[in-house]
Amino acid sequence: MATLINNLCVIGTGLIGGSFCLALKEAGACKKIVGAGRSEATLKKAQQLNIIDSYETEITNAVKDADLIFVSVPLGAMESVFEKISAGLKLAANKKAVVTDAGSSKQRVQQLAEQIFADDATGFNSSRFVAGHPIAGTENSGPDAAFAELYKDRRVILTPTAKTDHAAIKLVKEIWQITGATVETMDAAHHDIVLAATSHLPHVLAFGLVHCLENMEDIEDVFRFAAGGFRDVTRIASSDPVMWRDICLNNRQPILDMMRRYKDELDMLYNALEASDGEKLIEVFQHAKQTRDKFTH
Amino acid sequence: MATLINNLCVIGTGLIGGSFCLALKEAGACKKIVGAGRSEATLKKAQQLNIIDSYETEITNAVKDADLIFVSVPLGAMESVFEKISAGLKLAANKKAVVTDAGSSKQRVQQLAEQIFADDATGFNSSRFVAGHPIAGTENSGPDAAFAELYKDRRVILTPTAKTDHAAIKLVKEIWQITGATVETMDAAHHDIVLAATSHLPHVLAFGLVHCLENMEDIEDVFRFAAGGFRDVTRIASSDPVMWRDICLNNRQPILDMMRRYKDELDMLYNALEASDGEKLIEVFQHAKQTRDKFTH
Repeated sequence: MATLINNLCVIGTGLIGGSFCLALKEAGACKKIVGAGRSEATLKKAQQLNIIDSYETEITNAVKDADLIFVSVPLGAMESVFEKISAGLKLAANKKAVVTDAGSSKQRVQQLAEQIFADDATGFNSSRFVAGHPIAGTENSGPDAAFAELYKDRRVILTPTAKTDHAAIKLVKEIWQITGATVETMDAAHHDIVLAATSHLPHVLAFGLVHCLENMEDIEDVFRFAAGGFRDVTRIASSDPVMWRDICLNNRQPILDMMRRYKDELDMLYNALEASDGEKLIEVFQHAKQTRDKFTH
Repeated sequence: MATLINNLCVIGTGLIGGSFCLALKEAGACKKIVGAGRSEATLKKAQQLNIIDSYETEITNAVKDADLIFVSVPLGAMESVFEKISAGLKLAANKKAVVTDAGSSKQRVQQLAEQIFADDATGFNSSRFVAGHPIAGTENSGPDAAFAELYKDRRVILTPTAKTDHAAIKLVKEIWQITGATVETMDAAHHDIVLAATSHLPHVLAFGLVHCLENMEDIEDVFRFAAGGFRDVTRIASSDPVMWRDICLNNRQPILDMMRRYKDELDMLYNALEASDGEKLIEVFQHAKQTRDKFTH
């Protein structure tokens, strides 16, 4: 295919950023990929794995020649990374750079972008920031976990605002499509509610399940006799704790709303079981099964 | 191998009973397998699938010539099935029949066995009942879901009492080993706590998760954007509702205890997030990840 991007800068070369690079390399979509990030060891590893062509430890330097800047760092690092990008773009030759991210909460990231990428003399502003979120991942992290097929047949949600530049949206959409993903656009607030329900709440529940069993006397037996169901339910409790702390803090209100909803559900189930109300239990279980079967076929 | 059982009677020929038969057939461990159960359609299906050699719709008739009787029916049907077995064994030629089951709660089943298989003139009593529970299954049910490898490398827990006949325990242990399972013995009360933690609580949580999302306005989007994590966490919400109602009702107290423990955990996490207490969140997530990683390697 024709090269879409001359110079791609990827900040954060772990599972998400690394897989993005590998997919684009496989497709020949970029002339050059420069990695940047906090840890030089991670960047070296990413270079060894042929995820990036070169790296810079200073983000300010890394972004200077970039046409597209992809930010795939934990949400807690987003603010300081955006500040460094802004500083770097002030020195940039290319005033048309586009910035996008892969953060799991979108209202907070958009707010940061508008605050930090303010209109200024440099010519770069938040209209060329396109907030994005690939609905893909595994419980593993780091460059070693990256693979080119991560985004194949997965969905990527973009949450541009009315002010976002159309050419910037088009570019980010095209680059994601090259990775094999389907791209959809929605409102950031809607995104945050949907993700709180389908991803953030389940992660909190899984972490909580493993944690609440930890102090049982019979913990060795508990895990020795755990069958496939337990392993599936708790798989995501092996996810990166820093990343998930950041997601919780950055999508706090929608997650709190979902947790309250879930706590009400558990209270209802607890009361039904305490009252030995088999009819109520079977009603809930049947509905749940029907819904799940319907949506997974 | 040498034939271990002349006449096996399996009551309930779904996933659990059917897979038991298929594994034993593959090993040539039984001369004859007779199926029994409530639904003739299921029994016919099981015969077509070569799970059983023949069937009887009357349990009383089915057990008369049996050496080993395997009861794999939902817990709610256990009492009436035990009564029919007891009636059938009164007419039996073989006074040495052994009865075992595959129910997911063991205190309640043992209690039923002692109550129904009372000492009487027939010579059969609860000392030849060996309570058992294979830690295996899938979210599917019925004879179609059965497969010979279900128990391979899985654990089976037997919970005999001080009064249980040693030869009966030995026979049940051997037959399970033929299916490829590892057999362990423990106290019924301990079993019920461990299973409430590793299996019953996770199922209730998964049913509850799907059910609490059902009434969201955005339910279509919720499931459209659900990634692998959500699918894993909710896989067991596709399990059989009747079976799970019965498990809840028959292991009620240990499950209520675990639910209370989990509700406390969720309250703690909710309060931490409401207070934006990132340190508390990361402490919980890190502990959970360490525990899960440790026990799954």
